[in-house]
Parts: sequence; C-alpha cells; structure tokens
Amino acid sequence: MSDSPAPLKVGALIFPGFELLDLFGPLEMFGLLKERAILTILAEEPGNVRSAQGPEAVAKEPLAGSHGLDILLVPGGMGTRKLVEKAAFVAELRHQCETARYVATVCTGSGLVARTGVLDGRRATSNKFAFNWASSQGPAVTWVRKARWVEDGKFFTSSGVSAGMDMTLGLIAHLLGREVSVRVSNAAEYSWHEDKDSDPFAELNLPW
Amino acid sequence: MSDSPAPLKVGALIFPGFELLDLFGPLEMFGLLKERAILTILAEEPGNVRSAQGPEAVAKEPLAGSHGLDILLVPGGMGTRKLVEKAAFVAELRHQCETARYVATVCTGSGLVARTGVLDGRRATSNKFAFNWASSQGPAVTWVRKARWVEDGKFFTSSGVSAGMDMTLGLIAHLLGREVSVRVSNAAEYSWHEDKDSDPFAELNLPW
Repeated sequence: MSDSPAPLKVGALIFPGFELLDLFGPLEMFGLLKERAILTILAEEPGNVRSAQGPEAVAKEPLAGSHGLDILLVPGGMGTRKLVEKAAFVAELRHQCETARYVATVCTGSGLVARTGVLDGRRATSNKFAFNWASSQGPAVTWVRKARWVEDGKFFTSSGVSAGMDMTLGLIAHLLGREVSVRVSNAAEYSWHEDKDSDPFAELNLPW
Repeated sequence: MSDSPAPLKVGALIFPGFELLDLFGPLEMFGLLKERAILTILAEEPGNVRSAQGPEAVAKEPLAGSHGLDILLVPGGMGTRKLVEKAAFVAELRHQCETARYVATVCTGSGLVARTGVLDGRRATSNKFAFNWASSQGPAVTWVRKARWVEDGKFFTSSGVSAGMDMTLGLIAHLLGREVSVRVSNAAEYSWHEDKDSDPFAELNLPW
C-alpha cells in the first residue's frame, strides 16, 4: 500500500460505556493501512476509559485538543445516553464534527452526533436495537431504517456494531479506492459486506 | 439470556504488538453474553499495553495470577514473534493453557500457544499471511491450512483476525448452545461464518 501523500489522521472518540467492537473493528481496518493512517484515541479527558463490556482502552488526547482530523470516528454504546446530556461536551463534539474532513459513526454514535445538530437535513442510520433512541436525538435528520451504512457528504453513519467495519471499508474505498479496501479486508480475513444498502438485520432486530 | 449457573470467566492475554481485532472481536461476542461472562484482560504485567496498530488496552491482572479460567483467549499480532523467545513467559503460558478449561487463539496466537507444547499431537490452524511462522512454532502439531477455525478437545484455534469472532461464536455454541450464538451475532449485527471448515481466504492469502 503505497503512493499516498500524507497519512490519514484518524481520531477515535471513546467515553465510559463505549461498545468495544464499534471502536476496534474500524480501527483494525484503518490500522491495516499501515503507514497510510495514524490512529489516536480521544476522550473528554485523556486516560483509561471503561467500555460497556468492561475492558478499558487508553485515550491519549482530549477531544478538544484535536485539529486537522481526516476522520473523526464516533462509536456507540450505552454510554451515549449520558453523554448527550452534557452540553459542553456536545458543543465541543459539534465543533470537532464541523472541522473534521469526515465523520464516521457506528451504532448509537450517530445518535450522539445527531444531538449536535450537524446531521440536520442529512440522511443517517443507526443500529436496530436502539433505533428509536438514536433517531430521537435528531428529529431533523432523515433516518434510514434499512441500511448497512449511509453516506451523506462527509458523514458516514453505520448500523450496529459489526457494520462499522463495512462502513470503514466503504470510507477507505471512497478515499483510497476500492482495491485498497479489498486488500485490507483480505488481510483481516474479513468478508466485506460491500453493499451499503443491503441490511440483513433490519428486520431481524425488531422491535424498533 | 438466562438460566446460566455461573458466569464464564474469560481471560484475554495481551502483549506489546497484539492485533486489535484479534482481541476485541472475541471480547465483543463474549461481552454480549452480559452477565453470563466476566471479561478480564491479562498481560505479563498489568498496565497499558500498545497494540500493533498503536491504540493501547489496559491489562488488569498478571497472567501468572490467573486461576479458574473457563476460557483463555490468546490473540495474535507481530508481538508474538518476540514473546516466543521468552522462556519464563512461555512456561507460564503453558501452565495457564493446561489449567484453563478452554484455550481459544486467533491468528498467530496459535503459534504462541504451539510454542508451549500443549498443541503437540493436536489439530490447529492460524492465519494465512503468517502460516509458515506459526506452524514452525509447533512441529508436532497437525496444522490445518484450510479452516475458518479448528476445534480439538479444549483447544479452539482460528484463522486470521476476523475469524476469531466466528470461532468465539462457535465456542459459545459449544458451551451454551447454538441459539445463544445466533442471538449474540444478531445483537452484534454480525453475519456469523458458521461453517468452521469453509475458508474463503485459504487460497486468497497466498503465499504461505
């Protein structure tokens, strides 16, 4: 994987109660770009942050200290429920969403980003188990109930958990070409669900 | 998910240069068992441990302090190359493999476990990009080149990276029934690759 001018700066937001695979599925795929991507974990404050499942990840930089991100990655998880109530955090997240080149969300991460208002008037999706909650965070968003992921301008929003990996491969294809995504998915021995409009879980994971 | 007598004690080993999704894919699936599983990250010494991709996870307990594990999870990653040279570590890992109820490996994690000798005379697999290295760690192991994952007694070894999620669902099915694995995979919106003998990457990821 060569011929890239500058590595992609990927900043991944974590918070107490983030969902493990929402975060690390996409980071694995970006990581397989090797020197073409630089991964940084961000949080409201740097330090160790507990996931919804228990294991902790380490945030190296404060969200507010970020600048020049190519991709702001926002995972979901039960912790989003508390975060949307923190006005100062939501304001900073809005600023970061506005300044990042791309914003990519997984699962209820789209609810969190919707709360900032930046998705107003845009199409977005979320996971199936928490669709009502996520969509309630952005009444002016056009929520798509059946999609593996949705692209609208610089916003890439995915369905639940595993869909984040498919969306990330979609974003890599958008930025670096489909061939790169195929190579990444093969290196991860991952069967890329490449059709963003096909959603095998839309009806399984009722009720909405 | 109810009717379980005691939660599964899952201990996941990390080390510098572990592969992110090797670890967190399986932990996501175990985590979706909710109160039926307790997840603990282990390392040679507790503390923050850097992955192959850069992001760090937090090890809460020393590997040597573990006892009574139902599942010892061993991810792969470039860091395995150094670990196999550390005799004291390999000896402790052997002890942990012998005492855990099940040992589950992802990617080159099987090379690391093979080095301890506990896989001698058993069938095992590994990822395709590093198959030669992994298999060289256990000349007395029957290495299976084409498999999503391999089960031999208490040892579950998987192919590369994403295969760890499929193997974990296989192990959950083995322990708690297939219906539980289907529920977990649906909750993760993950298309479980359920046939352990089918390996779409065996020929793609040449050379071995």
